[in-house]
Amino acid sequence: MSTKLHREKLLSLFEENQDGVIYLKGADIMYRYGTDFEFPFRQESNFWYLTGVNEPEYHAVLDIKSGDYHLFAPERDAQFAVWHGMIKSNEQIQQDYAPDHLHRANDILSILKKLTPSAIYCLDEEQAEFIEDLNRDFNVETETLQDALTYCRCIKTDHELDLMREAARVNNIAHLEAMKALKPGMHEYEMKAIFDYHQTTNGLLQPAYTGIHAGGTNSAILHYVENRDKVNDGDLYLIDAGYEKDGYASDVTRTYPANGRFSGDQAAIYQIVLDALNKCIENVKPGVKMEELHLGACRIILHGLKEIGVLKGDIDQMMEDNIFALFFPHGLGHFLGLDTHDVGGYPKGVERIDRPGIKFLRVRRELMPGMVITIEPGIYFIPALLKPALESPDQSKYLNEERVNSLMNFGGVRIEDNLIITEEGYENMTDVPKEVKNIEEVMNR
Amino acid sequence: MSTKLHREKLLSLFEENQDGVIYLKGADIMYRYGTDFEFPFRQESNFWYLTGVNEPEYHAVLDIKSGDYHLFAPERDAQFAVWHGMIKSNEQIQQDYAPDHLHRANDILSILKKLTPSAIYCLDEEQAEFIEDLNRDFNVETETLQDALTYCRCIKTDHELDLMREAARVNNIAHLEAMKALKPGMHEYEMKAIFDYHQTTNGLLQPAYTGIHAGGTNSAILHYVENRDKVNDGDLYLIDAGYEKDGYASDVTRTYPANGRFSGDQAAIYQIVLDALNKCIENVKPGVKMEELHLGACRIILHGLKEIGVLKGDIDQMMEDNIFALFFPHGLGHFLGLDTHDVGGYPKGVERIDRPGIKFLRVRRELMPGMVITIEPGIYFIPALLKPALESPDQSKYLNEERVNSLMNFGGVRIEDNLIITEEGYENMTDVPKEVKNIEEVMNR
Repeated sequence: MSTKLHREKLLSLFEENQDGVIYLKGADIMYRYGTDFEFPFRQESNFWYLTGVNEPEYHAVLDIKSGDYHLFAPERDAQFAVWHGMIKSNEQIQQDYAPDHLHRANDILSILKKLTPSAIYCLDEEQAEFIEDLNRDFNVETETLQDALTYCRCIKTDHELDLMREAARVNNIAHLEAMKALKPGMHEYEMKAIFDYHQTTNGLLQPAYTGIHAGGTNSAILHYVENRDKVNDGDLYLIDAGYEKDGYASDVTRTYPANGRFSGDQAAIYQIVLDALNKCIENVKPGVKMEELHLGACRIILHGLKEIGVLKGDIDQMMEDNIFALFFPHGLGHFLGLDTHDVGGYPKGVERIDRPGIKFLRVRRELMPGMVITIEPGIYFIPALLKPALESPDQSKYLNEERVNSLMNFGGVRIEDNLIITEEGYENMTDVPKEVKNIEEVMNR
Repeated sequence: MSTKLHREKLLSLFEENQDGVIYLKGADIMYRYGTDFEFPFRQESNFWYLTGVNEPEYHAVLDIKSGDYHLFAPERDAQFAVWHGMIKSNEQIQQDYAPDHLHRANDILSILKKLTPSAIYCLDEEQAEFIEDLNRDFNVETETLQDALTYCRCIKTDHELDLMREAARVNNIAHLEAMKALKPGMHEYEMKAIFDYHQTTNGLLQPAYTGIHAGGTNSAILHYVENRDKVNDGDLYLIDAGYEKDGYASDVTRTYPANGRFSGDQAAIYQIVLDALNKCIENVKPGVKMEELHLGACRIILHGLKEIGVLKGDIDQMMEDNIFALFFPHGLGHFLGLDTHDVGGYPKGVERIDRPGIKFLRVRRELMPGMVITIEPGIYFIPALLKPALESPDQSKYLNEERVNSLMNFGGVRIEDNLIITEEGYENMTDVPKEVKNIEEVMNR
């Protein structure tokens, strides 16, 4: 990874010639409750971004004035080698991570004292406490670093984009193979097995999030993760899943009929979602705001649902009354990167942060080249939303009650692609069949 | 699950007619660092054992005198239904978990006050703090409950054993399919993909631990989890992995040659480990101590290594000088259950705990019917152990230096089965080829 570039990018946001330092604590191994069950190690995203260190118990200090990168490696005893492999020599660590200065973890206090920083910028209270526990006299600051890192991570470098393309490439394979394999009578976990197999056999070992493998009405549960039910003839099937390549996520959703042929209602509702997706994608380019795209999708969804007799009344009025949210109750998309819901998605209210110590920080909602986003419109029939709506005069006036009730067990449709914002517009990294015709072809080959 | 039986078993360990209550906090969802990445939910083992509740944010109170089981369910708002499915009605919760009294989570304080317990037995300091934060006047006790639960969980009920047999059955399939699939040139992660596929497609969704998929010298790293290397012709390949069935673990290891034919040294060293395994298994029965089995295995390993010219000298002397630990540096096995390294493995020094509030508690190292254990001898060539040993006069006198050096990149062999202790002896749940002849047959079919 181009971590040197990332460190330079971060340092450029801080006032030059100040005596502050940036401190970051790498992740430790996580355990399940009070047991020795270790979760597979995954570095904390910001530490990974700045160091590329994929081992537990490291620390890093960046000296803002000199730009020096201090890396602190843990002490390992002989037992470590028996259980986890050879202990890396200092030469090996130096070669792997190329810090300006390599120290041992128990030297943090002495090095920080030597640097005599006017401020130590920390990511959060927990990391700040670690520093304060070393010495109460340090001036610890937790308001700046998170924002600065968010600003950096929003815009990906070419190397980061290559990693995201690789995560997307493997995800395309896994989604296609799952689509080909589905037959009525299979269980959701059998589909998960196929999907995960294709990720892992292609070398991706960490899921980017807990995947959703949902048949029938489960497809209308936005974060369904049980994955235990049988998928029946006539059901829709929704899969929302992806893995990480070197920490960088892919996050793709497809919905298709268990038996390989869309029913009339399934095709009609699917097509509305697909139209919304395609229209949003067409409009993706620098300067566009996500909320504009979201509202555009809402309008298409309302139009479509009116056309097939689910809704009635004036579209503008429905937009004003948020009727779209009854069927599309989540956001159109989010930033994608080292976290699946990547940083920068919920920018600060302020346009520009004018704060001592940090020279430039503006998080823009407007799309910019190098950002990576998901676009994922959906239509769901969620009883928990629709049943109260049918009882509410303000909402029921727009609903064709009979039609809504007849679709109450329809489930849901979501279609999600991953896009890089480019100077010209976008690059769609997701290449899994999504037209009705293409899906039916793949499933009936 | 027979959770009522588990609760009765636990309560029977406490003095009758006392006013104490047992409090347990169910698990919350775990997140990756400061992100919204949710790990798949897995109930805390003790809470699962006593309640069978497979949802986050529950609490339980057991009233020792009356035996009443109070379950506290979290409040869920409408948003919960949209994201996670229908909100369970009280009737549904009652039906699913059959508590004597069902309450909402925010009623814990008022119910505890009504019960006016003389003591509240908690699992650990964290759970005790939760109770103390409700009311500082409660008399919280953390010395007893963990031991009592350990005592209960050590001896499995018939229903628990059935779940362990199912975890073992699927693990047998996954190990066999992996063994059949291996070819030189494959990557460790391709083998992991095949192994995990067979677990998941058979409905097991949670790994019991992070699996080890290790080719070549990686097989001598006891907790190798990188799983990224290519497996080469001539390499040994070691897989140590298993999944959970309803929380109950399977934990099996097999080692075999990547090319399907053991070399001379591979066959010889493998056979020593297999002899140790078979001899240990033969000796498994109630009353036997794990440490006796362990030392028996050590002796077989020393004999074998002497026979093939790795060691020289007197076996009794080597036993005294712990020379076995240079090649077999881990324990022979452990309890297996809701945790892979299940509770009860490291019993207290005292034979019987005579403490107010708890009637009977004895954790025995001796095997008893209903216990489930792993037996997993191994021989490894670990440079971090052998290189210093070759430099040490006390150890090097037993080592045939040339032979040891020629095997320094041999890797390691471990073979591990899962056994239920029965009245008559044992039931071996693991049925994956382990004789040299059978492995070669399976791999060359």
